[in-house]
Amino acid sequence: MNRRMVLNTIGHIALAEAALLALPLIVSFLYKEACAYAFLITIGICLSTGLILKFTTRPGTKVIYAKESFAIVTYAWLLMALFGALPFVISGEIPSYVDAFFETVSGFTTTGASILTDIESMSHGLLFWRSFTHWIGGMGVLVFVMALIPNISDRSIHIMRAEMPGPEVGKLLPKARDTAKILYLIYVVLTAVEIVMLLCGGMPLFDSIVHAFGTAGTGGFGIKADSIAGYSPYLQWVIAIFMLVFALNFNLFYLVLVGKIKSVLKSTELWCFVSIVLLSIGVIAINIYKMYDGIEEVLRMTTFQVSSIISTTGYATTDFDLWPGLSKSILMLLMVIGGCAGSTAGGLKVSRVIILIKSVLRELKKLLHPRSVRIVKLDGKRVDEQTLSGTASYFVIYAIIVIGIFILLSIGPFSIETNLSATLACFNNIGPGFATVGPTLSYAEYSAFSKILLSLAMLLGRLEIFPLILGLNPLIWKKR
Amino acid sequence: MNRRMVLNTIGHIALAEAALLALPLIVSFLYKEACAYAFLITIGICLSTGLILKFTTRPGTKVIYAKESFAIVTYAWLLMALFGALPFVISGEIPSYVDAFFETVSGFTTTGASILTDIESMSHGLLFWRSFTHWIGGMGVLVFVMALIPNISDRSIHIMRAEMPGPEVGKLLPKARDTAKILYLIYVVLTAVEIVMLLCGGMPLFDSIVHAFGTAGTGGFGIKADSIAGYSPYLQWVIAIFMLVFALNFNLFYLVLVGKIKSVLKSTELWCFVSIVLLSIGVIAINIYKMYDGIEEVLRMTTFQVSSIISTTGYATTDFDLWPGLSKSILMLLMVIGGCAGSTAGGLKVSRVIILIKSVLRELKKLLHPRSVRIVKLDGKRVDEQTLSGTASYFVIYAIIVIGIFILLSIGPFSIETNLSATLACFNNIGPGFATVGPTLSYAEYSAFSKILLSLAMLLGRLEIFPLILGLNPLIWKKR
Repeated sequence: MNRRMVLNTIGHIALAEAALLALPLIVSFLYKEACAYAFLITIGICLSTGLILKFTTRPGTKVIYAKESFAIVTYAWLLMALFGALPFVISGEIPSYVDAFFETVSGFTTTGASILTDIESMSHGLLFWRSFTHWIGGMGVLVFVMALIPNISDRSIHIMRAEMPGPEVGKLLPKARDTAKILYLIYVVLTAVEIVMLLCGGMPLFDSIVHAFGTAGTGGFGIKADSIAGYSPYLQWVIAIFMLVFALNFNLFYLVLVGKIKSVLKSTELWCFVSIVLLSIGVIAINIYKMYDGIEEVLRMTTFQVSSIISTTGYATTDFDLWPGLSKSILMLLMVIGGCAGSTAGGLKVSRVIILIKSVLRELKKLLHPRSVRIVKLDGKRVDEQTLSGTASYFVIYAIIVIGIFILLSIGPFSIETNLSATLACFNNIGPGFATVGPTLSYAEYSAFSKILLSLAMLLGRLEIFPLILGLNPLIWKKR
Repeated sequence: MNRRMVLNTIGHIALAEAALLALPLIVSFLYKEACAYAFLITIGICLSTGLILKFTTRPGTKVIYAKESFAIVTYAWLLMALFGALPFVISGEIPSYVDAFFETVSGFTTTGASILTDIESMSHGLLFWRSFTHWIGGMGVLVFVMALIPNISDRSIHIMRAEMPGPEVGKLLPKARDTAKILYLIYVVLTAVEIVMLLCGGMPLFDSIVHAFGTAGTGGFGIKADSIAGYSPYLQWVIAIFMLVFALNFNLFYLVLVGKIKSVLKSTELWCFVSIVLLSIGVIAINIYKMYDGIEEVLRMTTFQVSSIISTTGYATTDFDLWPGLSKSILMLLMVIGGCAGSTAGGLKVSRVIILIKSVLRELKKLLHPRSVRIVKLDGKRVDEQTLSGTASYFVIYAIIVIGIFILLSIGPFSIETNLSATLACFNNIGPGFATVGPTLSYAEYSAFSKILLSLAMLLGRLEIFPLILGLNPLIWKKR
C-alpha cells in the first residue's frame, strides 16, 4: 500500500477539522462561553497533528487504488471522531471520553443517538459543534476535503465510492472533484433554504441553523429535551418535508438543475421511496388515529415520524415508543430500508431494496424456466451481475452485523426490544429506538463496552460496512 | 402444466394419508378411546377423495417438470394438513378447525408449536397422530410416497429437490426412488434405536414412541405439560443427543453405511455444525451457571436446549424464557441457523450459512483486487454461481418473509419479543419462542388470523419458501 499517500491525506483531514472547529469557536465567543478554550486546545491538537503528517509524509506518487481509499476513509473518520470528541471532554460538559466519543461518532455518522440526559444545560458552542458534525458527516468528510483541496488525487473516485452511500456511484461530471463540488453546492443551498423557512416560522436563528444541520445531514441532534415537539405545527411540517428532501438521491437535484425533469420522473427509486412513505403514513395514521386530536395532528405526527425514521434522522414530535405494535414494527422496517442511495440518509437504501427484490423475482422465474437467461433492469438500464452479487453480499453482511451486535449488546441487562432497536437505530444511523432507548430517553445507561460497540455500528452503517472492514484489516498496510 | 399428472399424484397422497391414519386408529382401539370414530371418518374422506382423483385423472404422460413438482408439493402438503386436522375437530378434542389446522401444520412441518393448553387431557390416539405427523413430515411427505409407490414419475428428482431441505440436493443413487428408500431406511432404523434406548431408561412404550417421533422429525410435540422436564437425566441426555443426530445431513449416515468414513470427516458442514453447538453450549453454560445445581445439571440443561433449538425440535427441560438476555439471543441466532442440509431440521441450514459467509468473503477480496477471479469452494468442490446466487436470493426472501410476518403479527396485542420469537420459531419450524409463546406456554392466545399466518410461515419454512410461492402462484396452472 502507498502508506505515505494515506498518511498525507489523513494529515489533510486533521487540518480540515481544525478549520471546521473555527465555526463553533466563533459561536462560543459570540455567546461568551467558557468552552471556547476547549475548542482552541482541540484546534491546536488538530493543527499540529495535521502539519506533522503533512510534512513528514510527502507522497512520491499520487496514484491510489481501492486499498488506499479504504484505509483513508477508515482512518479519516476515526481521526475526525477521536479529535472531535475532545472539546466535550476538555470543557468538562461530557466528562467521560467514551461518552464524548459516542456522541461525536453519532454526530459525524449522522445517527443522532445521544448519551446526554440534560441537553438544555449544554453550552451553545458545543451544541453547535454537535450539530455541525451532522452537517459535515452527511455529505461525507472526504467529499468535503476533495471539493476543497485542489488535486488531492488522480483517482479520487475510489474515495467517493468508499464514502458515498448506495450500490453504485454515479459520476455526475467526468472529474470526481467537480462532482463533489456540485453535490456540496446543492447541499449548502438546500440547507440555507431550510434555515430561511425556519426563520420565517419564528424559530430563533441559533435553533434554525442547528436544526437545519440536523435535518440536512439526516442526523437528528436537537437542542431541546423534547426534540421538535415544542415547536409550532408549521415548523414541524417544514422539518418533516426537509427530512424527506435530504433522503432523496442528490443526483436528482442535479438533474433538476440541468433541466432533465423527465429523467427525474423516470427514477424507480424515487417512486418506490414516495410509495413507501405514503403507504407507511396511511397505515400508521389509521393505527394511531385515536391517540391525537383531529386529522391535522394525526397526519402531522405520522408524517413527521415516518419522515424522521425513513430518512434516518431521528427527530421526534411525539413519543412514538407509546404507539401500538403495528406502527412500531412498520417504523422498524423503515429503519432498515432507509433513504435513497446518494443521499445523506442511512439504512439499506431504497435502490438496494429494489435490486434485492428484483433479484429474488429473477430467481423465482429461473426456477420455473431453468434454461432462460434473464437480466435485472433499473431505470431501463441493465444492472450488471457484479452489482447484483455485491448487493446480495451487502445484505448478508448487513444481517450478520445486526445479529452480531444484537447478541453482544444482550450481555447487558436490557430487554430484547431495547437491544434490537438500539442495534437497528445505531447501525442504520437513525438515533432513537424503542423502550429504554426510546425518543424521550438516551443511550446513557449502556455500559462503556456497549457504547463503543454501538459507535462501531454507527461507523459501519455510515460507511456501508465494506470500506471499514477492509480499512481496519491490518493486512492492507503491507508494502507493495 | 400437466394438470392431470398433478391431480393424480395428489390423489395418491390422499390415499397414503388414509393408510397412515390406520396407525393412530389402531392406537385408539388399543386404548378403547372414542376418538377412533374420528379417525374412521377421516380415513373415509381421504379414501374417497384419493380414489376420485386417481380414477378421474389418468395422466397421459408421466413426465413432470419443475412447475409440476412445485404444484404437487404445495397441494400435497396443504391436503395432508387440511385432512389431517379433521380427527381433532371430529373428536371434539380441538373444537376450532383453525386451531386443529394450526396444530396439524405444526405437526407435518415438524414445528411443534401448539395451541393446546391442557395437553395431558388428550386421548392417546390423537396424541399419537399428532406426533406421527412429525415423523411423516420430517423426511417429507412426498419422499415417503415416492419410496412406496412404484414408478410414480420418471423425473421425481424434481419433487425431492422441492421438498428436501438445503441449497443442493445430492442424489445418493442414480434413481431418486432408490435414494428415497435408503433415506427412509436410515430414518426408520435411527428412530427404532432411539425408542429402544428410551425404553431402556424406563420410559413407557407409548411415551418412547411418541418422543422418538418428535425427535426424529425434529418436531417437538410432547405429551406432558412440562415437555421433557419430568423425565430422568438419562432420558434427557438420550433425547438431547438424538436431536443432534437428526439435525445432521442424512447423506453422512449413508456414507458411514458404505464405509466412507473419511468423506464424512471431511464434511465442512459437519464441523461447522459441531463447532456452533459446542461454542453455544460453552457460552450459555457460563451465562446460566448460577441458575442450576452442579455442573451436570448446567451442562444437561444447556446441551438439551441448544440441541433442541439448533435442531429446530423445540422440546424443553427448563423454562429457557427465564434465561438471561445473552443466552436468549444466542438461542434466537440458533433458531435462524438451524440444522444441516438434508436433515429433518429447519432453519436456514448450516451449509447455506457457510455459503453465504464464503460469498461475502469473496466479495471483500474482490473489492481489494477488482480484476481477480475467485471461486467459492465447499468440501473441496466448486460451488457453482447459480447455487451462490440462489442461496443469496434465498436469504433475501427469507428475511423479507420474517419481516412481513412479524409486521402482520404486530397487528395483535403482543410484545415485540413475543411476535419476533413467534415468527422465528414458526418459520424455522422450532415451536416455542419467548415471552407469551415461551416453552411453558402456547400459541392459544393468538387470533385466528395470526394462527393462519403462522401456519403459512411453518409451511414456507418447511418447504424452503420457493416451492410454496411458486406452487401457490395461479399462473403455473396454465395449460402448455
